[in-house]
Amino acid sequence: MTVVRQPDRVGRDRPPAGGDGVIAMKHGFGGRAMRRLVGETLAAGFVDIPVDGYGLAAMDDGAALRVGDQWLIVTTDAHVVHPVFFPGGDIGGLAVSGTVNDLAMMGATEPLGITCAIVVEEGFARADLERIHDSMLRTCRHAGTTVLTGDTKVMGRGEVDGVVITTTGVALTSRLVRDSVLRPGDQLIISGTIGDHGVALMAHRHELTLATDLHSDAAPLNAMIRDALAAAPEAIVAMKDPTRGGLSSALHEFASKSNVGIVVHERDVPMRDEVRATAEILGLDAFHIANEGKALIGVRGGAEMVEAVLEALRGHPEGVNAALIGECVATRPGDVVLDTGLGKRLMVESEGEPLPRIC
Amino acid sequence: MTVVRQPDRVGRDRPPAGGDGVIAMKHGFGGRAMRRLVGETLAAGFVDIPVDGYGLAAMDDGAALRVGDQWLIVTTDAHVVHPVFFPGGDIGGLAVSGTVNDLAMMGATEPLGITCAIVVEEGFARADLERIHDSMLRTCRHAGTTVLTGDTKVMGRGEVDGVVITTTGVALTSRLVRDSVLRPGDQLIISGTIGDHGVALMAHRHELTLATDLHSDAAPLNAMIRDALAAAPEAIVAMKDPTRGGLSSALHEFASKSNVGIVVHERDVPMRDEVRATAEILGLDAFHIANEGKALIGVRGGAEMVEAVLEALRGHPEGVNAALIGECVATRPGDVVLDTGLGKRLMVESEGEPLPRIC
Repeated sequence: MTVVRQPDRVGRDRPPAGGDGVIAMKHGFGGRAMRRLVGETLAAGFVDIPVDGYGLAAMDDGAALRVGDQWLIVTTDAHVVHPVFFPGGDIGGLAVSGTVNDLAMMGATEPLGITCAIVVEEGFARADLERIHDSMLRTCRHAGTTVLTGDTKVMGRGEVDGVVITTTGVALTSRLVRDSVLRPGDQLIISGTIGDHGVALMAHRHELTLATDLHSDAAPLNAMIRDALAAAPEAIVAMKDPTRGGLSSALHEFASKSNVGIVVHERDVPMRDEVRATAEILGLDAFHIANEGKALIGVRGGAEMVEAVLEALRGHPEGVNAALIGECVATRPGDVVLDTGLGKRLMVESEGEPLPRIC
Repeated sequence: MTVVRQPDRVGRDRPPAGGDGVIAMKHGFGGRAMRRLVGETLAAGFVDIPVDGYGLAAMDDGAALRVGDQWLIVTTDAHVVHPVFFPGGDIGGLAVSGTVNDLAMMGATEPLGITCAIVVEEGFARADLERIHDSMLRTCRHAGTTVLTGDTKVMGRGEVDGVVITTTGVALTSRLVRDSVLRPGDQLIISGTIGDHGVALMAHRHELTLATDLHSDAAPLNAMIRDALAAAPEAIVAMKDPTRGGLSSALHEFASKSNVGIVVHERDVPMRDEVRATAEILGLDAFHIANEGKALIGVRGGAEMVEAVLEALRGHPEGVNAALIGECVATRPGDVVLDTGLGKRLMVESEGEPLPRIC
């Protein structure tokens, strides 16, 4: 056996930033750039492998597979939020909430459980890991679920910044809610104020301390959604949680996947004054900012059904500011029109709002 | 609203390395240190939340939940292997194989599908991401499964080293195989040579080019395991894939969870000469080195059943070197004894073999 040295092939000789040949930050922002990367590269081929249900081709919050007369919902998210502790939450509670909410958005409000894969940097404080664990446990109890299984990997100092947590949720539901079946006439409800998570995180990261209280809205919504579905079982036809890319991305996904136009009444969209003011200071558009405890809900059946859903939402602390904000229309399918009260303008979906590691 | 500056709270002022207060590399090596971290911190509390089946408390390859008259198996793994391309494989095929194999070890050989969460560094080459994607797709087709849903996050340059891929698998099975029900008299089979993955990776990382061919054994084993289960449906009572911590960790888990003694006949354990020689050069113990395409199988029912399982395994390219390597005994419950042919010695489970980012 001959032993010889060969040139280092393990190294980091990557192409320079910029250009189409490399991954850029915009590919992670939840906008058009990310959708193109997923569509052109990451999902290619997999979408052609048949599944008994809705897999990657549906590009929904998760997959839905036929199991007997029920649907098995599976959803996954990697969490890279920075810093890991922020006003109103931390990466642990955020991960559990995000996964519980993705299940709920597809109609599955009673999770069988979640899996948790943690990648942690050498030198990370055990006390911080314990704090993150406690937050996950508390949020699981709140949502009536648990961590079923997990994995732990350690990377060396400087190889990962702190901790990355990937959670996957599984749940069974007899009623599947999707995001591609909206029709003209369907009404759109948002379950509360928008922008809270992203603005609180960016203000914290920019070291702004404001006289007012800014905090993330991260919370599991499954109990609230369960009540809304019970109040109007047939009327809720679509749901999406407006996380990365904000309300704007969620509206655009509704419009393009259901091939309807959407009109949103700007003055009806609930937003805290301090969020609006801070977003202005930071030069951010609250419509493009991530929320982690909100649901965008499409309702069919007119004013009576809208009232029933609003009442159910408002019965929970997470839904006290729920509001009717718009409707689906037959004109301009795929477009989102913002009615400012003074006039109408097209809401442009951002290429990818520059908010790295927001969730 | 008053805007004031406050001290940076987002930063990286971590405790120094060493000591019990921080995460060390050993916490990721699959040995005792990792098991303590998981038991004392990460799993605490979750194990007390009841599930209909086997959750985190079982500390198995995954969770098993009752769904009608079947078991829903759920398993997750984060993959941080460095470098991402190595002799015989890459992070993409490794991730799919690892997840398919964890499902198979619990008796679920027909995955419903897997989820894929990718965290990628800004500046990572798209061509490399495409190569990883192609490998995942190829491995999925080989295993008869697909990616059902996913997530993509981008971290800035220097915030994550290349790419981290977390895959979660879901599958249904009517027959659940666990790792805690071995009894004295049960026989132990390994499905092929040990040490290939870890030694190939370490040799590559140490820039050794050897006249002989070293390559990872990463491969999905579900077709082979399906045939073995069909050949001896009642006889296969326990399975585990000897990944991190190697064959030694898998044997120790069998012994401690089933509360049996285990005797392993060293000369019967299949190992390639080049793996043995390279492990010696690198100062590694092949029994402690990760495998990514092997199964340790506990068989009940005597020589006839052992032959049936071996024949089924050897009918697949991944199982041609399958061998009977030991048995469970009533003496020294929890211990693993290595019979070298010249004498017997206790096999010590490593605290955590220093092989960072091996999978």
